[in-house]
Amino acid sequence: MSNGNEDFPPELRRDPITGVWVIIANRAGRPSGDLEEKVLPESACPFCPTREHVTPPEICAVRPEGGEANGPGWQIRVVPNKFKALDINLPLQRQGIGIYDWISGRGAHEVIVETPDHHALMRNIPREHMKLIVDIYAARIAHLRRDHNLRHVVLFRNYRTAAGASLSHPHSQIIALPIVPKLVKDKLRAARDYYAHRERCIFCDIVEHELETNQRVAVQNEDFVALVPFAARFPYEVHIYPRRHQYDFLVMEEYEKWGFVDILQDVLRRYFVLLGDKKTGWNVPYNMVLQTAPNTAPRPGRPDYWGTIEYDYHWHVEMIPRLTKMAGFEWGTGFYINVVLPERAAGELRDVSVPAQPEQQS
Amino acid sequence: MSNGNEDFPPELRRDPITGVWVIIANRAGRPSGDLEEKVLPESACPFCPTREHVTPPEICAVRPEGGEANGPGWQIRVVPNKFKALDINLPLQRQGIGIYDWISGRGAHEVIVETPDHHALMRNIPREHMKLIVDIYAARIAHLRRDHNLRHVVLFRNYRTAAGASLSHPHSQIIALPIVPKLVKDKLRAARDYYAHRERCIFCDIVEHELETNQRVAVQNEDFVALVPFAARFPYEVHIYPRRHQYDFLVMEEYEKWGFVDILQDVLRRYFVLLGDKKTGWNVPYNMVLQTAPNTAPRPGRPDYWGTIEYDYHWHVEMIPRLTKMAGFEWGTGFYINVVLPERAAGELRDVSVPAQPEQQS
Repeated sequence: MSNGNEDFPPELRRDPITGVWVIIANRAGRPSGDLEEKVLPESACPFCPTREHVTPPEICAVRPEGGEANGPGWQIRVVPNKFKALDINLPLQRQGIGIYDWISGRGAHEVIVETPDHHALMRNIPREHMKLIVDIYAARIAHLRRDHNLRHVVLFRNYRTAAGASLSHPHSQIIALPIVPKLVKDKLRAARDYYAHRERCIFCDIVEHELETNQRVAVQNEDFVALVPFAARFPYEVHIYPRRHQYDFLVMEEYEKWGFVDILQDVLRRYFVLLGDKKTGWNVPYNMVLQTAPNTAPRPGRPDYWGTIEYDYHWHVEMIPRLTKMAGFEWGTGFYINVVLPERAAGELRDVSVPAQPEQQS
Repeated sequence: MSNGNEDFPPELRRDPITGVWVIIANRAGRPSGDLEEKVLPESACPFCPTREHVTPPEICAVRPEGGEANGPGWQIRVVPNKFKALDINLPLQRQGIGIYDWISGRGAHEVIVETPDHHALMRNIPREHMKLIVDIYAARIAHLRRDHNLRHVVLFRNYRTAAGASLSHPHSQIIALPIVPKLVKDKLRAARDYYAHRERCIFCDIVEHELETNQRVAVQNEDFVALVPFAARFPYEVHIYPRRHQYDFLVMEEYEKWGFVDILQDVLRRYFVLLGDKKTGWNVPYNMVLQTAPNTAPRPGRPDYWGTIEYDYHWHVEMIPRLTKMAGFEWGTGFYINVVLPERAAGELRDVSVPAQPEQQS
């Protein structure tokens, strides 16, 4: 355990009452958490072409025309997060400290720079390029799972300052953890218990129920459905599910990826028309989180029980516009207050008229 | 269940996967959730004396010199929240909707206006007045528990816009719920399980361990300890515990209330010196949440099992400075990243020199 010095390696600590794990990491130098919108000008952006040396050396990149690593010419670029929450070079250590539990901060924290265009907006990125982004998401998750010490991979996208982004250049992040977080474990257990009694996937049942009642469907295509959840925690929260049962993002078929790209951009366009800033073209601040299965690869000497996970779990994407702030009540109870009726949010998202084509990029 | 019209009664919905309850409530007209600091001038503040008619009629008040209800002369005033998240006049109804669970939004949502002084700062409120505030906290909790349909009372204080406050006049809020939230249930279960094996309170053990190791104690007095938790979720998060085992806020003795007032103001003064705005005198934005036992009063026809709660649970107050923003990673995993080592935060809070007396109010 660290002893209070300025620069300490990251670590994980478990709250003995709630069971929640916390990463303690020195991310000094990280752009600060001010509340006002901050936009680093293109000329100082570390993710822009010709400034590749500002980031740590790249992990991989898409360079259709070839070219040197860490030089320009890329279309998508994956780099380690400079202000990393976990460190892939730390040995994995577990320790009990009195009544507390501690794990060394071994893990990965990567940034996926999704386009060289500083001003690109995800809703307008060409479909073919979006498909490449989804391919990279999948490739990074697959790669990180080859380290069997990394038990869960979280892919997320924070858009704009209010959603926690510190840079405006389009990017997503990946954090690979040495444990499965409690919230994910709770969801896995609920899905397993439901399946044990019914031999049906709870998520498939939800999707079916929602398509039947059609009160909370925001948008759908052949392979995907975007729903406002029955118990949405946030106004205009949307969950995107594949229609075909699939427990893991990585079992998505190639043809389905197009449907995923389409529904994702469709939801973003609807967000923009309903909630975005028409003057600047910026969308509403949002968080996007991929919820998929943990790393089920067997570990030598540390058996895990995954049960019926291939049948009972179902990956999905959570989209959370940041219109309200969490306050004391939410922290204290894990209880949320949503001021927009989910059926109403779904209706507005469904009825809004969106351009079929991307807008002209400014 | 509501059907999408503009004005709908509040309701509670349970997420079938996570088990989390969400309040869906139309709080239209509520000051909006902008991110910039908004300070309503004193001349328009609904909580200031002579503007008593702007709030709903008062529930109770402290008027040492006497005077009419809903007129000036009060020192503390409790009113229903005008933009209420729950409604005390709704009948309690429970319903299964397909695979979902629904409860009518019966409950209470009150505002405790803590002083007539619009510009007062809690850290500087005279000790005797603070004691009255704590008495009112206890009185409201006791009163609300007399309604056996209200199963849990949450008392919280949001300070400044970044912490979710929409008005700057000093106030706390109370929400009384028809269910015990999942996070609270998880904590109760963890405490009960710990006790079952050891016949010791886990919170007492934590306090003892922390006093012994003295790495994370921020400040203490005869009856209370303020700790930075081992797995603090937020920089400078502090939990205040009574030293004597007591499962519920309402079993605190009169003499202990003074110790509670002192440690609360002490923590707030330390926050101000370390993190506050020296120019304006404003403290860092924070949330304060009282974590205490649920309503254990028996309900006719609906038995509850409270087990050893009097012995295994231990009330406490969580203080959370709002220095960072939650982002996608946190939403997705229930996992937090804290950039300040808890031992370091505790050390800074311990070592900071604070005035023993309240500052001169401006």
